[in-house]
Amino acid sequence: MIKTPKNELIRRLDFFKNAMNRFEPEWEIAVLFDKINIFYFTGTMQNGTLFIQRDGDSYFFIRRNFDRAVAESEFENLIPIKSFRDIHQYIKKIPETVYISKDSTPISVFERFNKYFNFKTVKSSDLAINYTRSIKSDYEMQFILEAGKIHQITKEEIVPKLLVEGMTEFDFARLLLNEMLKLGHQGITRIKSFNGELYLGNICFGENSNYFNSFDGPGGLKGVCPAVPLFGNRETILTKDMLVHVDTACGYMGYYTDKTSIYFTGKTPSHVLDQHKKCVEIQNMVAEMLKPGNTPAEIYEKVMSKLDDDFLYGFMGYKSNQVKFLGHGIGLHVDEFPAIAKGFELPLEENMVLAVEPKKSIDGVGMVGPENTYIVTKNGGKCITGTIHNIIEVFI
Amino acid sequence: MIKTPKNELIRRLDFFKNAMNRFEPEWEIAVLFDKINIFYFTGTMQNGTLFIQRDGDSYFFIRRNFDRAVAESEFENLIPIKSFRDIHQYIKKIPETVYISKDSTPISVFERFNKYFNFKTVKSSDLAINYTRSIKSDYEMQFILEAGKIHQITKEEIVPKLLVEGMTEFDFARLLLNEMLKLGHQGITRIKSFNGELYLGNICFGENSNYFNSFDGPGGLKGVCPAVPLFGNRETILTKDMLVHVDTACGYMGYYTDKTSIYFTGKTPSHVLDQHKKCVEIQNMVAEMLKPGNTPAEIYEKVMSKLDDDFLYGFMGYKSNQVKFLGHGIGLHVDEFPAIAKGFELPLEENMVLAVEPKKSIDGVGMVGPENTYIVTKNGGKCITGTIHNIIEVFI
Repeated sequence: MIKTPKNELIRRLDFFKNAMNRFEPEWEIAVLFDKINIFYFTGTMQNGTLFIQRDGDSYFFIRRNFDRAVAESEFENLIPIKSFRDIHQYIKKIPETVYISKDSTPISVFERFNKYFNFKTVKSSDLAINYTRSIKSDYEMQFILEAGKIHQITKEEIVPKLLVEGMTEFDFARLLLNEMLKLGHQGITRIKSFNGELYLGNICFGENSNYFNSFDGPGGLKGVCPAVPLFGNRETILTKDMLVHVDTACGYMGYYTDKTSIYFTGKTPSHVLDQHKKCVEIQNMVAEMLKPGNTPAEIYEKVMSKLDDDFLYGFMGYKSNQVKFLGHGIGLHVDEFPAIAKGFELPLEENMVLAVEPKKSIDGVGMVGPENTYIVTKNGGKCITGTIHNIIEVFI
Repeated sequence: MIKTPKNELIRRLDFFKNAMNRFEPEWEIAVLFDKINIFYFTGTMQNGTLFIQRDGDSYFFIRRNFDRAVAESEFENLIPIKSFRDIHQYIKKIPETVYISKDSTPISVFERFNKYFNFKTVKSSDLAINYTRSIKSDYEMQFILEAGKIHQITKEEIVPKLLVEGMTEFDFARLLLNEMLKLGHQGITRIKSFNGELYLGNICFGENSNYFNSFDGPGGLKGVCPAVPLFGNRETILTKDMLVHVDTACGYMGYYTDKTSIYFTGKTPSHVLDQHKKCVEIQNMVAEMLKPGNTPAEIYEKVMSKLDDDFLYGFMGYKSNQVKFLGHGIGLHVDEFPAIAKGFELPLEENMVLAVEPKKSIDGVGMVGPENTYIVTKNGGKCITGTIHNIIEVFI
């Protein structure tokens, strides 16, 4: 079993405490409830409450399942509880203010908890958590690199063999999922944003990649039905001279990479090639700027200022699908801090991992543009999801 | 495309308003944010805010994607907004108190919203929503019945052909998922409980079904790794004389059924047969009581009082996995209202749908016991997920 090493857990906790000192200098206590943050700090994904104290020990109070936590976790203070009441004997001083992840905690969960603590003020620890998780250690990077390798093989070698004239979009998605699971993909796709949901990714034949989509990304998606606007559509059939847009998240040991590849079932029309080529240039321009010290906000500004109105039509989403970012952090969730967008003014740091996805919708055709995952290095973004960025032509 | 009919949406909204009048007689306005509740009331799964007024019109204010909502939804008042501020022109009277789903709304989502409304008191609409969703219409039942059929074929015909000596638990889970997707399963599995997550279900070879698990269900599960305690394990190999526990959720057009089948790779030992038989008897005893007027609490009490201490060891979960319910409602989420457990005092009504899962862990073997999905009828629960409840023996 892969256990997160103790020194890695200690590093993450210390880093987080320093981030809290920096962003929330008044803090004394942070409490986490959601399983992904809890896994990050403890190495086990149990239901419970993680208390992190500025001036005292940290404790993971576990409702379910304590035995599994013991088997999986190197975290020092694992404490079984039946009720939140049991926590008081460990936490002697309850300050006025508690910092929690407001983004991931439902109101009822916090209310049930706070009956026993009566914190007067509730503040957000989200920036400090998000920032902490954005910089990946060598330990984390091994899993991210493996996800990237699976992605490269999938998109460069396997997809061209799977695409067959007459198949449905859903069947292609199904076969793709099956192949990725064979290669090591973990299955579930985790999204941090409220109401966010992906099942493998956006898998689209033709104009389905321009279909209106509630998900906060550039890609359109028809999906199965109104109740399941995900994965692939059972009525859409692959024909000759069709664009295929394959945007997937690949997960390995919890960590994701994100990659989009574009295929064409025939000879790609020149205007489609031109638009895709332009998107690849933008991707490479962004990648070059993925260096410590640059801010995501200035990268976004620099790139967008170079694009003319004609090109901006359909760029980063079809009509009302359009989004205002060029990429996003990625890790234990597909959508992590920071976005490459306005407002993200914290400078990039070495070993942040970001997906860059300049995409463009073309009327009557679908969406072109690459997506790859990069590590921030002194020499610019290092691509870890493959080398073929052009449109791949199949059955010609 | 399958569109939820207008009269069905009107029925759901009226039913909900009546439920609010019953459970929260002071209510004036309810506001919903999460996509599953929004889909239930509007027929489309967009990001936005649904305002339901006791004495006025209801409105779905849509941030993203309005065009898709128009294409999919028969809901009367679909309004595009850019900011929560835009809502004020439609909702003239803002009362002191707002009712929201506290279970599904993160603190930050509500805080961003309430900046524009300054509701003084926030109360929960969860009971009224959960109760409304628990009683299924004929329109909903068609999808549930279809999910049940897929389940029956999968468990009774397909699984016995998939199990091959020497395969890994993960590979079996992968092949099973692939077959279910072929038959019509939608892919994603949705859980309502905070921190709840399933990827298809609990698929376990041998003692992995006794493995400690954070999920609030009886079944153990090892899963892929500590970061992905889901689906199947890549190291566990199927051998002769092994128990196989296959608990899956099958989704069709948004609606789930839940079913567990038990297989044995050889001749089932008699003590395993005996324990399973006893669980089937308990299942049938519960099913017989699934009639309008009976309460889940009294069903739970009646059944549990009949079981002796010897049998209770490992019943409803191995050691610290043990749970205090015998079944649960199911619909757009796998885990819906009501649970068959203490505290659920509202009487059952016709056309509620519940999964019944009396299971028992056996030391050194794994977990036996059936699970099936039932419709509450005047004649007792009607099973919709198949007819074979015994252990199915394979490769003998």
